[in-house]
This record gives sequence, C-alpha cells and structure tokens, in this order.
Amino acid sequence: MKFRNRFDQIKNAKKSLLCVGLDPEVEKFPIELKKDPDALFLFCRTIIEATAPFAAAYKINFAFFERFGASGWQTIEQLVAEIPEDCLSIADAKRGDIGNSARHYAEALFKQLGFDAVTVNPYMGWDSAEPFVQWHDKFVFFLGLTSNAGAADFQYYNQNLRPLYSYIAEKVESWNEAGNCGLVVGATKPQQFREIRNVAPSLTFLIPGIGAQGGSVEVVLQNLGDTNGFLSASRSILYASDGDDFAEAAAQEARRLQQLMKHVFV
Amino acid sequence: MKFRNRFDQIKNAKKSLLCVGLDPEVEKFPIELKKDPDALFLFCRTIIEATAPFAAAYKINFAFFERFGASGWQTIEQLVAEIPEDCLSIADAKRGDIGNSARHYAEALFKQLGFDAVTVNPYMGWDSAEPFVQWHDKFVFFLGLTSNAGAADFQYYNQNLRPLYSYIAEKVESWNEAGNCGLVVGATKPQQFREIRNVAPSLTFLIPGIGAQGGSVEVVLQNLGDTNGFLSASRSILYASDGDDFAEAAAQEARRLQQLMKHVFV
Repeated sequence: MKFRNRFDQIKNAKKSLLCVGLDPEVEKFPIELKKDPDALFLFCRTIIEATAPFAAAYKINFAFFERFGASGWQTIEQLVAEIPEDCLSIADAKRGDIGNSARHYAEALFKQLGFDAVTVNPYMGWDSAEPFVQWHDKFVFFLGLTSNAGAADFQYYNQNLRPLYSYIAEKVESWNEAGNCGLVVGATKPQQFREIRNVAPSLTFLIPGIGAQGGSVEVVLQNLGDTNGFLSASRSILYASDGDDFAEAAAQEARRLQQLMKHVFV
Repeated sequence: MKFRNRFDQIKNAKKSLLCVGLDPEVEKFPIELKKDPDALFLFCRTIIEATAPFAAAYKINFAFFERFGASGWQTIEQLVAEIPEDCLSIADAKRGDIGNSARHYAEALFKQLGFDAVTVNPYMGWDSAEPFVQWHDKFVFFLGLTSNAGAADFQYYNQNLRPLYSYIAEKVESWNEAGNCGLVVGATKPQQFREIRNVAPSLTFLIPGIGAQGGSVEVVLQNLGDTNGFLSASRSILYASDGDDFAEAAAQEARRLQQLMKHVFV
C-alpha cells in the first residue's frame, strides 16, 4: 500500500499526527541502562513499545547512530524491524547527491534498511531528487524551511521578493505526480505554514521542533489548517524522565501530545 | 598538522592535485573479482595501491557503500586505514543537519572513521556548519556549484542579479577563519571558477567531474588560475579496464591525469 494511504488509515485510526523522533543520547539514559553494551538498541526499543499506541510514525535520526560507526548502522537495521505495522518509519538521513549516488542512497534506505520514508536535501535539484521519488510506494520529505536559527542564512534568499524555501516548496509540489512527496517545515515557523501550503497544497508536512525546541502543538495545528502533516517531538518524549520510569514517562508525554491533536479528527 | 599544510606538502612533493573518487560499482568489477565476498574492499584497496603515487587525495563516496548497509560501513572503516600517509582522505558524505545532529555527524566522520575532510551541504546554514568547522585540524568542503544538470534548479536562484551559489561561496569564505573551509565546484562549470574565486579567495576547491563527466583538466586548471584545489576523477580511473589488468589501467589513467597537472608546479 502507498505511504499516503497508510498515513490516512493510521492517523484516522489513532487520531494522531505524532511522529516520535529517535535521537538517542546515551549520556542521557538512566544510569543502570547506560552500563548495558546494547543500551542504544534497548532504549529505543523500549521507547517504541511504550509510545506506539499514540504515534503515527517514528523518525530515526541517523546522526545519533552513525557516531558509533558500523555498529550504529546495525542498531538502525535492528530498530526498523521493531517499528509496529501501524506506525510508519522515516529515515531522517537528509541525504542528497547526484543521480548515480542518489540511486544508491535510495536503495540503502528504502530497500536495504526498509524504511517507508526518507528526508532529502533538495539543494542539488531534480536529478538528485528523482532517484528517491521514483520509489512510488515510498515517501520523500524534502527540506523546506527548517527549525534552526541558521535557516535564515540561505533559505530566505530572495528572488523578486520570494524566499528560496517558498520556491523549493512549489518545485517539490511539481515533483509530486505520484503523491509521494512532502516537505520539512519547522514547528518554530508556524507563521509561514499558510504561505507554504498555498504553493504546495498536496504536500505532506514533516514538522519537527514540537516540545524541547519550543514549537506548540496548538499553534502548529491552527496554522497548518489540515491534517496533512506529522508533528515530530524527540527530546521531550525520550527524556521525560531520566529514571527507571523513563518508559512510562515517555508514554505519558506521547499521550499528552496525542490528546492535543485528537480534536482535529472530530 | 593542519589539513591545508598537509595539502601544500603533498601537492608540491607529488606535483599533483589529483583526487581519486572511490565510487565502486560491484557490477563493473572484473568477473573473477566479482565472485569474492570481499570484492568491494579488495577492489578499492587495489585501486588505492595502484594510484597512490599520483594521487593527492582519495574521496570515498558513502552512497556506494551504504547500499550494503552496516557491512558497507565496515568496508569504509577498513578502507580509511588503507589510505597512505602521503594522501588525504575525504568523506564524500554530503551531510547537513542542525547543531546537535551535525555534531554527531562530525564525530562520526572525523573521529569514529578518522577522515581528514568531509563534504557538507550548506542549506541549513551556519549552525549546521559550525560543528564541522570547529574541528580546526580537519577540513570541510561545502557544496557550492555542483556538476549535475539539476544544479540549475536552486543554485542559480537569483537575488539582485546574484546567484545563490555565489552568495554561499562568500558566506563560506567568512566561515574560514581557521583556514579549514573549502567549496565543491563542478569541473563542468569552469566558466564560473574565476567568479567564485573572486568572492572566495582563500577557499580550497574540490572539483569533481574530471573524466567520465566531461570536465577537462586543462580547461579547469586554466580557469582555476592557482593550485588551491583538488581535481577529482572516479569512473575514468576505476573502470579504465574491466579485465584483470584493471589496477595497471587505473594507475596509467591516474598518471596521465597527474601529467596534465604537473606543469602548474613548475
């Protein structure tokens, strides 16, 4: 089944747009767990089990695994298999390269690791995007307007009063013939949501920055104006407690966020 | 020793600006080698041994390894150790993410894998660049003007008659206080070299696209106007022969390219 159809099913069944970002920092794990050589995998698996009833998707941030080299990649391989059927898996790897290389990156993420979706950097243009987009059952989130301060450096570069991120959004909309393209838009930029939605009506948004980065669920939902997006939270769920009750605390925080979202499905 | 100083020593000693791009396609290996389960590593090691006298650097393209998952990462770990002392190692991974993630990517590439340099996508701005740039003995090549057709989609986005790639080049120049920043400029765009050099006088260029992609060594050197850059060739060296003599053929092609460069050191 196509990603978009699975997303529709899942979000309506769970009344949730929540994406749980797996950005595991071993340094922040509970003391007892830290000592386990398999702590990275065990922590993430526990978070997945605890939060799955409230989550529409999991987003695995490759940086937090690649710091451990090949063994970090092994942990990613193990974790993808732990994500339940009623949740989507997003490889937050932000790849982007020319045709031949992009083709291999797509194969690595979609086939070798088996992810449902991926984040891609659009800077190199269409021939770097197409090798991902041609996987019609999979899904590609292109970076649009990101949640960090540095977004101001280049994403607002302005041609005829139009910022680059808006132009990219319109281009990605034109790439969305198979209905498998989306856009990363930071939760810290809700005032731009309507503007981007106007030029990109069909794109699913991936909205990181809920929680620890300061984005508010209510404000995001109000400005999004529809349910075609994932609201992603990481640290506020993963480190809701640094004690042995971290799984319960994570479940509670995921449930709290889902409760803030459920009204849009009424 | 700082990367820039090593580069100066190496290029003057070898009279070479050649970077050999390791983009190994198992499908193109000699028939006998293909059967070996360790073919990916053996092919690359043989290429390194054969071409090292003529090469200033090796650039490992992560896409061609990640397609094999964790085992591909293991091969990268093995290969970095095979690059001789008198050659620099470049992780062509094109990473780019916000601060915390970028910090882990930098740790993965510089410390865990031990590369001398890395390619980074600048789209997310300074706070995504700084975690790499703060490794003062290492080196960071930011994507500027790439060699592919899709470069036209966003890299020429124009503010007050100034294309984005030129603005990025000037920004990266301002990030180069420690002398460890460079810029990726495609060999297929030599007419832009002088324009970029004018706004980025101190940056080392990484110039892919020599050989199979159609970039000419003579034209690139003429337009570069100095020796502050690596000219990178991949397929024309790796697949100079598809027979058992692939190592000799690769050495011959690397030597031919180095011979086209040596006159700039006279």
